[in-house]
Amino acid sequence: MTTDQSDDVVQRRLERARDRLSERGIDALVCFPSSNMGYLAGFEEEPMERHLFLFVTPETELFVAPEMYDDQLRDASPVTDIRTWSDGDDPVALVERVGDELGLSGGRLLVDDRMWALFTQDLRTAFPEASFGLASEVTEELRLRKDEAELEALREAAEISDTVSEEIRALGAEAIGMTENELAAEIEERLADAGGEGVSFETVVGSGPNGARPHHRSGDRTIEAGDPVVLDFGTRAGGYPGDQTRTVVFDGEPPAAFEEVHDAVLEAHNAAVEAVEPGVPAEEIDRVARDVLEERGYGDEFIHRTGHGVGLDVHEPPYITAGNDRELEPGMVFSVEPGVYLEGEFGVRIEDLVVVTEDGHERLNDSPRTWRPL
Amino acid sequence: MTTDQSDDVVQRRLERARDRLSERGIDALVCFPSSNMGYLAGFEEEPMERHLFLFVTPETELFVAPEMYDDQLRDASPVTDIRTWSDGDDPVALVERVGDELGLSGGRLLVDDRMWALFTQDLRTAFPEASFGLASEVTEELRLRKDEAELEALREAAEISDTVSEEIRALGAEAIGMTENELAAEIEERLADAGGEGVSFETVVGSGPNGARPHHRSGDRTIEAGDPVVLDFGTRAGGYPGDQTRTVVFDGEPPAAFEEVHDAVLEAHNAAVEAVEPGVPAEEIDRVARDVLEERGYGDEFIHRTGHGVGLDVHEPPYITAGNDRELEPGMVFSVEPGVYLEGEFGVRIEDLVVVTEDGHERLNDSPRTWRPL
Repeated sequence: MTTDQSDDVVQRRLERARDRLSERGIDALVCFPSSNMGYLAGFEEEPMERHLFLFVTPETELFVAPEMYDDQLRDASPVTDIRTWSDGDDPVALVERVGDELGLSGGRLLVDDRMWALFTQDLRTAFPEASFGLASEVTEELRLRKDEAELEALREAAEISDTVSEEIRALGAEAIGMTENELAAEIEERLADAGGEGVSFETVVGSGPNGARPHHRSGDRTIEAGDPVVLDFGTRAGGYPGDQTRTVVFDGEPPAAFEEVHDAVLEAHNAAVEAVEPGVPAEEIDRVARDVLEERGYGDEFIHRTGHGVGLDVHEPPYITAGNDRELEPGMVFSVEPGVYLEGEFGVRIEDLVVVTEDGHERLNDSPRTWRPL
Repeated sequence: MTTDQSDDVVQRRLERARDRLSERGIDALVCFPSSNMGYLAGFEEEPMERHLFLFVTPETELFVAPEMYDDQLRDASPVTDIRTWSDGDDPVALVERVGDELGLSGGRLLVDDRMWALFTQDLRTAFPEASFGLASEVTEELRLRKDEAELEALREAAEISDTVSEEIRALGAEAIGMTENELAAEIEERLADAGGEGVSFETVVGSGPNGARPHHRSGDRTIEAGDPVVLDFGTRAGGYPGDQTRTVVFDGEPPAAFEEVHDAVLEAHNAAVEAVEPGVPAEEIDRVARDVLEERGYGDEFIHRTGHGVGLDVHEPPYITAGNDRELEPGMVFSVEPGVYLEGEFGVRIEDLVVVTEDGHERLNDSPRTWRPL
């Protein structure tokens, strides 16, 4: 993925991170290749088995990196202090030297929430007197409210999803006889053709009974006439992901209970979206969706939270779930995706991304929410 | 990805893992969604922010899982003891109850090497008296030597890479004028058409000066006549990845130094492959490749290790690097991929996967290693 982040943007984020570290008496934030490293240093890379760390302290920041990444880091990031190690060297010894220089032994260190145990163990070895916490203690607040450039990227990603959602729905009877895997490949090709950068997550095509498994991806099952098909997919634009779900019957008569279930899920989805505004606790959005489905007799079949925040990570705070009393604020972006899952029969889920605005909300998705092929 | 692993295979692996835990006085192995979970329980899933753990103790094994994964786990895994939690519940409380039942408090726990800090922190909270190590202490030995079914999958993945490598090379002058991203998309489409399951890693198309960055993926640069292009890609078959590199000049005259560099890298590659046999230390394979390149005057331009093990993870032990004195054993599989990188000019890398056999080695790749388009 490629994020459109100028050096200026990154410098401002680093400054805010340093200020927060300083305010909270934290000695360093240690990131490894993750969305935090992308956000704070402008360098995006998959997690890897080599030691590649970004250290941010209240005063400064530097990379510890494999020699072979030196050029790429210089190109991508305004962080110019890069300490390299070569294959065959001991990277932990380099981490210890850097720690001495930055005065970290015995300090308070925050490590990337997704850092591998392999590396947190090395940090514990390098700094046996230090105390450890999670980076989100600082980064969550920084990343929760999206700025205008981030919102633009999210809008573009949503627009691509919407376009492909309409195209796929328009296949109608043509989709009958395709396997889920074939339809998933078709979706992914169209996302790329529409300008998307890869997929936000493995494309979900859950046909018939497979739709009753919320995290079924796609398989060899052939789509039959009358099958409800859960289509949950997205691509990235400017580094930010789309994530949208529609449940479609491409052709034929759906199961007897289907229309009623789809109507209930759509009512829950719309009610939850309508409830989004600043000051409302996240759990309240979940409760609104759950109340509708309970009232309609499907409470036990709604077996997951109502949504998740979306940013550089496709699942990130705020989580729209019971027990999360964090109040919504302008700039937060999350999914609203209630679903009903009838084991062995079918599933229905309807999902849009929503931005909290100053006086309410903005839906990022506007492709049709009906189950009909149109 | 889909691994062809029968319940019998998984049961035998679990048994071996339990025996090792018992021998070493370890109280539990705790995996999260990773190759270890796939290997030991037959369930493959991307890492996720929800708590999904496999506990293996000397006596038993069980899952702690989000309710929404219950059906999928029952289908995929012979591990039938599944303790579920629902969104809105506190998963750490469930982990604590399971730990009490299994007698883990104050014990020795090994956590997945790639487990996120988010979860290792929760385990430390749940078991404040426990001591922690890494799962590889047990799983590395189990996974290092591939069995015949694993080798078959690796051979199939390699064959698909070989086929596509030859097809792409045959583009010849047609590749001139394509961007790296376009050529990468072409490679990935052909891998899928040839029966591959996704990609083993982000496809690398490094043209001209971009080839001098070992981990450049692909970008907007247009491939020109005379450009050396590093092509490093692979797909999965039966859950196991291919990984192969060729450096090709699709058309025109390469830079003056190129032919000599390519010849040196190929000599280093072949010498290192020839040195592979049981009993040889991993670092010796690295030394053989490095000696050739040093002798030919490119020692400083070979800026990475010679290879990495390949299995369910595309980078795993054994690492073929200075300082790794582990002796090669039959069934180990790794890459041999020396390279020379001339900053601002071009790079050359040639990579095959190699299996250690009883009396030597078997190359998994046999597509042409020449730089000519054929």
